[in-house]
Amino acid sequence: MMRNKKILMVIIDGISDRPVNNKTPLSEAKTPNMDRIATMGINGIMDTIAPGIRPGSDTGHLALLGYNPFKFYTGRGPIEAAGAGVKVNPGDIAFRVNFGTVKGEGNIFDKIVVDRRAGRISKTQPLIDAIMQGVNLDVEFILAKGSGHRAALVLRGKNLSDKITDTDPKIIGEKVKMCKPLIDDRNAIFTAKIVNEFMEKSHEILENHPLNKDRENQGLLKANALLLRGVGKVPHIPSFSERYGMRLAVISGTTLIRGIGKVLGGDLIEVEGMTGGKDTSIKNKVKMAIKSLEEYGFVLLHFKATDEFGHDGDFDGKRNFIEKIDMELKPLLELDFSRVCLILTADHSTSIIAKEHTADPVPVTIVHEGVRVDDVKQFSEFEAYKGGLCRIRGMDLINIALDLIDRAKKFGA
Amino acid sequence: MMRNKKILMVIIDGISDRPVNNKTPLSEAKTPNMDRIATMGINGIMDTIAPGIRPGSDTGHLALLGYNPFKFYTGRGPIEAAGAGVKVNPGDIAFRVNFGTVKGEGNIFDKIVVDRRAGRISKTQPLIDAIMQGVNLDVEFILAKGSGHRAALVLRGKNLSDKITDTDPKIIGEKVKMCKPLIDDRNAIFTAKIVNEFMEKSHEILENHPLNKDRENQGLLKANALLLRGVGKVPHIPSFSERYGMRLAVISGTTLIRGIGKVLGGDLIEVEGMTGGKDTSIKNKVKMAIKSLEEYGFVLLHFKATDEFGHDGDFDGKRNFIEKIDMELKPLLELDFSRVCLILTADHSTSIIAKEHTADPVPVTIVHEGVRVDDVKQFSEFEAYKGGLCRIRGMDLINIALDLIDRAKKFGA
Repeated sequence: MMRNKKILMVIIDGISDRPVNNKTPLSEAKTPNMDRIATMGINGIMDTIAPGIRPGSDTGHLALLGYNPFKFYTGRGPIEAAGAGVKVNPGDIAFRVNFGTVKGEGNIFDKIVVDRRAGRISKTQPLIDAIMQGVNLDVEFILAKGSGHRAALVLRGKNLSDKITDTDPKIIGEKVKMCKPLIDDRNAIFTAKIVNEFMEKSHEILENHPLNKDRENQGLLKANALLLRGVGKVPHIPSFSERYGMRLAVISGTTLIRGIGKVLGGDLIEVEGMTGGKDTSIKNKVKMAIKSLEEYGFVLLHFKATDEFGHDGDFDGKRNFIEKIDMELKPLLELDFSRVCLILTADHSTSIIAKEHTADPVPVTIVHEGVRVDDVKQFSEFEAYKGGLCRIRGMDLINIALDLIDRAKKFGA
Repeated sequence: MMRNKKILMVIIDGISDRPVNNKTPLSEAKTPNMDRIATMGINGIMDTIAPGIRPGSDTGHLALLGYNPFKFYTGRGPIEAAGAGVKVNPGDIAFRVNFGTVKGEGNIFDKIVVDRRAGRISKTQPLIDAIMQGVNLDVEFILAKGSGHRAALVLRGKNLSDKITDTDPKIIGEKVKMCKPLIDDRNAIFTAKIVNEFMEKSHEILENHPLNKDRENQGLLKANALLLRGVGKVPHIPSFSERYGMRLAVISGTTLIRGIGKVLGGDLIEVEGMTGGKDTSIKNKVKMAIKSLEEYGFVLLHFKATDEFGHDGDFDGKRNFIEKIDMELKPLLELDFSRVCLILTADHSTSIIAKEHTADPVPVTIVHEGVRVDDVKQFSEFEAYKGGLCRIRGMDLINIALDLIDRAKKFGA
């Protein structure tokens, strides 16, 4: 019986903020359901990674799942590749990839990037197929489609290194960059050579592909170059079920978070109407999260759009979206908290002024039978710190939850 | 524009205390300006190093500047030497030195220490010059004058070790101690031999120096021995500007804190009337700190005397000095907090009962546009813990400030 207790972690990406005139979108939003959760639970503030350290969504989520990002985070490439559906192996070298448009004479490294998204092309599968068939390298490679103009590249083999540079110049009007070794190391030199070969060969195929000829005829930008960035070596990382003895379900429309789920050996749960954006079906995601508790020990339910409104600097938009999420959280109040440990929190703050993630701590609430209910009655940056959790770290959160559901092991006798 | 935000850290040495009848000098002092700062900011308590660890002023300051003292603190010698103006190099062996008076027959190690300050001699430069000219060792050495009877000794060369004992017996009436290796190591044995040679040769020169003959004739104690303590190897330590991309200014009259500033590659700012003691010009120091913000990214403003009153066990004296400081802090209220991040805190508590530093956490307040202002309205040990920072560590403070002024880098994506 005890073994059947479950954890539902609701992560509202960047929900908390840095105040403007002592107000934040969260403190101003009408959030009766979140406030009810805060009232039923124990509250605190949390440094997802450490005080003053600005988390990415990837490093933040790793920490919240109990994986030290300083140990297990090796760059965004591996996570994006996993999110794009590549079954990555430890030791693989992975990149984030954009289909882009280059112009000019000579080889790929003489050409200028005129668009980093190839006119926001999304029909890239035929191009990917042509590259997979037409390019030969001294190591195995996988090119996988991501959303829109995005893709992931994985190199697999011996003697590979991630101590190399990007080929994406990241600035329009600059030349495609040659991949260079970052250290004087045989493997880094070898890997850079392979990457440059891939750049040239893939460019040749793309340049002459019928789909690009069609685009040219239609006045569209050709998707004639692959721009690589975020290189990382896939780490040896113990799976979530290995580590915690419970299966992980991830409900998120965001490639990066889906990638985290895959890297940890979790299952991605598909939801009708889930988009990863502002138009996602919140209601369906909440419903599916509750349903998934039947089958999974740990369910991660992630909402992205709050973070996007933060990056846009849109106070009202963020507040309104928080209220929209809140309305759909009502079913969570009906959970059996003798069986389910509910966690409501964020992976980081996103400041509508800085338009960026900040290290301001996030509010966190834990509801479960047996928590020391405190006096906090509102889920907000200005109330959370008064709660019984005081100030904790993201890495500790899952251990606190495992203890509450009696899955923690005693250290010592 | 963003790049021009600055940090002003005001450290009032040992200002906080362990209560007597639920009162401390700080809680009893009338501090309208500090209270105004607390009201405008976010508050908390802070373990400078870690809970229960009693910080020195040196280790405390290192931590507050974001340098882990367990990694970078190698004893007081290197810091005092830097504070005395020696340009120390990584690998140098440094000692704190007292000019002392010894009496008796035989060699230096047969003689008894009759005064550890040689009658508080301060005219030591001729003696130092004579030693620098007259003593020859197998390694290079530098003897530098400190304040009063104090000096610093630096040994420089290959095969040197700091795993050796002091020669200062620290107790009147005991013999000068021979320097011994602490471990069975060739370098430690070699260094101890060098130190003992230095002890003998310097003693011979001092004993016969005309200045000491004069002192003897005047009935003064001879400064005829150098007593060495606080040995440490100068660590490899990244400079403040290397680490944080901003220049460090230190405003302190205290050799030890000045030494910390020098070790980190900071600039020491001189102030008229600054003495490092109870008679220092608080007003001028505050004025200079504000002025220094024009040129420096990070200004450390340090006041020492509160700690001295604590060591003296003087409740009223400490309270009165706190009030004296408070009066002069008024100009800080006029800072532009959209540009300046003001931190008000201490390096440790100094208990008027224990007459020593204690590990009781210190209050800390941060004022900057965008901090989550809390309900705390008084700068005191009894109010600070109710604030929005909860309980933090000294090492995290600078990262929190760098995040607030948007100089933090995101870890991950």
